[in-house]
Amino acid sequence: MYNNLYNNLVVIGGNTSGLAAASQARRINPDLNITVLESGKYISYGSCSLPYFISGYVKKVDDLFTYPKDFFEQKRNIKILTGHRVVGIDTSKKELLVNVSQDRENRIIEYDKLIISSGGTTIIPDIPGIDSLNVFQFRNVEDAENLKNFIDSNNPKKAVVIGGGAIGMLLVEAFNKIGIKTTVVERKERIYNEFEYEISTILSRKAEMDGVDILTKTSITSVNTDSGQNTVTIEDAGGKKDLECDLVLLATGVSANTGFLADTSIELGINGTIKVDNKLQSSHMNIYASGDCATIKNIVTGKQDHIPTANNAVKTGRIAGENAAGGNKVFNGSVRTVVDKVLDLEIASTGIGSKEAVSLGYDAIKLIDGFSSHAGSVPGAKKIAIIIIVDTASRKLLGAQMIGGEGVGKRIDVFATAITGEMTVDDIYMLDLSYAPAISTVWDPVNKICGKAVLALDSKNV
Amino acid sequence: MYNNLYNNLVVIGGNTSGLAAASQARRINPDLNITVLESGKYISYGSCSLPYFISGYVKKVDDLFTYPKDFFEQKRNIKILTGHRVVGIDTSKKELLVNVSQDRENRIIEYDKLIISSGGTTIIPDIPGIDSLNVFQFRNVEDAENLKNFIDSNNPKKAVVIGGGAIGMLLVEAFNKIGIKTTVVERKERIYNEFEYEISTILSRKAEMDGVDILTKTSITSVNTDSGQNTVTIEDAGGKKDLECDLVLLATGVSANTGFLADTSIELGINGTIKVDNKLQSSHMNIYASGDCATIKNIVTGKQDHIPTANNAVKTGRIAGENAAGGNKVFNGSVRTVVDKVLDLEIASTGIGSKEAVSLGYDAIKLIDGFSSHAGSVPGAKKIAIIIIVDTASRKLLGAQMIGGEGVGKRIDVFATAITGEMTVDDIYMLDLSYAPAISTVWDPVNKICGKAVLALDSKNV
Repeated sequence: MYNNLYNNLVVIGGNTSGLAAASQARRINPDLNITVLESGKYISYGSCSLPYFISGYVKKVDDLFTYPKDFFEQKRNIKILTGHRVVGIDTSKKELLVNVSQDRENRIIEYDKLIISSGGTTIIPDIPGIDSLNVFQFRNVEDAENLKNFIDSNNPKKAVVIGGGAIGMLLVEAFNKIGIKTTVVERKERIYNEFEYEISTILSRKAEMDGVDILTKTSITSVNTDSGQNTVTIEDAGGKKDLECDLVLLATGVSANTGFLADTSIELGINGTIKVDNKLQSSHMNIYASGDCATIKNIVTGKQDHIPTANNAVKTGRIAGENAAGGNKVFNGSVRTVVDKVLDLEIASTGIGSKEAVSLGYDAIKLIDGFSSHAGSVPGAKKIAIIIIVDTASRKLLGAQMIGGEGVGKRIDVFATAITGEMTVDDIYMLDLSYAPAISTVWDPVNKICGKAVLALDSKNV
Repeated sequence: MYNNLYNNLVVIGGNTSGLAAASQARRINPDLNITVLESGKYISYGSCSLPYFISGYVKKVDDLFTYPKDFFEQKRNIKILTGHRVVGIDTSKKELLVNVSQDRENRIIEYDKLIISSGGTTIIPDIPGIDSLNVFQFRNVEDAENLKNFIDSNNPKKAVVIGGGAIGMLLVEAFNKIGIKTTVVERKERIYNEFEYEISTILSRKAEMDGVDILTKTSITSVNTDSGQNTVTIEDAGGKKDLECDLVLLATGVSANTGFLADTSIELGINGTIKVDNKLQSSHMNIYASGDCATIKNIVTGKQDHIPTANNAVKTGRIAGENAAGGNKVFNGSVRTVVDKVLDLEIASTGIGSKEAVSLGYDAIKLIDGFSSHAGSVPGAKKIAIIIIVDTASRKLLGAQMIGGEGVGKRIDVFATAITGEMTVDDIYMLDLSYAPAISTVWDPVNKICGKAVLALDSKNV
């Protein structure tokens, strides 16, 4: 037992959300004993930058770290215990069962208040050969180091990436940069499947132009390393076939890392996330949860959702930390804003898509158009495509998606702000957005697409 | 007289706002006779791109035009008359007195509805020598051509730019690029004087690093070309002195181009702008006004203002055109969003500054901080500085200003949207903004500066 004081706050997870929680708890309450338990070797790294370590754009693993352990221990008086994996919780005794990497037996660590920020975990398909040495996950620094070491030692020429979401495609980009020929195997209809068809198709074509093979409606049935020749067996409507590959990367989606709660009465929700209220409190009064392992209220749908973004991780962490330390802050939720820069394209989304709008019962219209990222008189303008989804009844914006060569990331934020502010397309059409020839067009694309929606709605109502 | 039909819409001004008005009137009403009177030779050009024509970044004057005359005449059935300068209005007879460049006598042109989109005009200081051949204004294509021809023929080495606002500094950038050594003479305390001190100081230092001389609290008292040696006489607290210069550029501010209304009963407001209501209607029922020559409601102050931006020009033009053609649209106003890209810095503003907040009676706080434009793990991040002005009582954002190497233009739009939506800093702090390492930091700078405001307000209220 590390200590026995009453004000014992333990945080499970030493990355973005857990450290945001611990730091905010310290700001609120200087007297608390705060301990962070991290299962891995490293804390405080930028998960989203890991693909750049593979491509060599980020040179050293050290460049991935935001703050060193010392910073938290010395400046913030937060005890950091790496190599401490929580394997069970006794919520009545307020005890954690912790597997410590250098110990033979598990330890017991007590808590008064607990914040679970244990993050996400890659969903591993249950197929033969999935534990082969050339199969990699990609969630944390250790994963990235393993993959980098394998690449440096084995000089692989062909990779199969399982899953065409953001993590998969960012690795595709990294592999492309270092000369590894890549095939993407995607079970669903298309890559970036949560995006509208037109947006993900633009990305798909760019990937193919860059020499990436994309196989959709295709699943992987086994990884084969026995015969000396490494292959994976894939299956689509036409049947099975084998693909040669030196390396398999699993980007098969993320579920909450909450397996260690299986024997507890802590309520779980979507994707194994811990159910929390708007104060980030779980079904147990003294247990909070934040980040990728917690439910998040989707502001547009009003429902509990799983939105594992860094932005949500840091915000919910901060609020969970504040409340666990005696505060009383509310987290209003997320509009599910995401952006990636992949294969020289920025691709971004906020709010809900057209399918989700239909399933929620909205009579929604979908508008799409292409725009120039800045004025044609100034060289270097890039094309951007925008889709918006609008509720016919209220004329409010429900969602927006965008892809293009520049000016996408922070434009999606205007839509995110407008959705949060419950603005109509009439409002957004008339927003006073910035213009200079090198920055935008006189009517910003954000204004223009909403002007198109206004026209469509007006003609619909005639 | 051009025609005598009842439905005679005449638009004064053939640039952004006038053409937006004429085009929207045509969309609304296919039967209207629409005539646009433009005093100059050219229509439909990007005023904001003119400095790039001087620097050579835009090669040909043709690249500055958005649409040709034929487009309006043939596709939109709008008659375009260039070289037609309106010199007087008889509002009771509904007649315009028009000076036509190729005619000896003025013509009368009748209207049923009139839209005045006559734009702005450079404020010319009343000093000896101001009409010298080496003194230039810079409002339209003719001005830009004159300046370019002078530069090409005379190879000037030294320029004095009178006025350190946006137009002045964009010309400074252009002169710098083509090797003309420039001195800026600014009457007020600093360049970009409408910005907060800290922001304009960053720009000022960059300009000085780039070899530009900046003289503030200095006015020009005469332009001297008699002695063979061209000079300007300037005056500051220390007295008068002469500056050698081959070229003088007047960037002395813009007033509404409404001198031709002097003998009418059309009501004028700030800076000579035509007073309009929220339907862009002037004090005369059948006369509308839009763009740089019209008042605009400032959404933050609630007052009539003069906000001569391209964005406002095109929006008010469209609404004036719609209403003059029988529509009934409302323009809610502007939050005064501006952005410029000058000397490799983006500088932007929205809402009101700290001085204006004080003068309006707000108990406001001002927050300033520096941020990285994107994650440090990805090379190429630039510094950005942000200032926000917040009303202590309501916690609402009143204004934001920003300067930096990238990611400023569209970030100011998030603030502009938030101000329009009357969001508090608490709301903005928690906005779900996009993050990817190449695009932003996990907490976007927009979130962060508002988080700082939340802390400051909370501690103030303790």
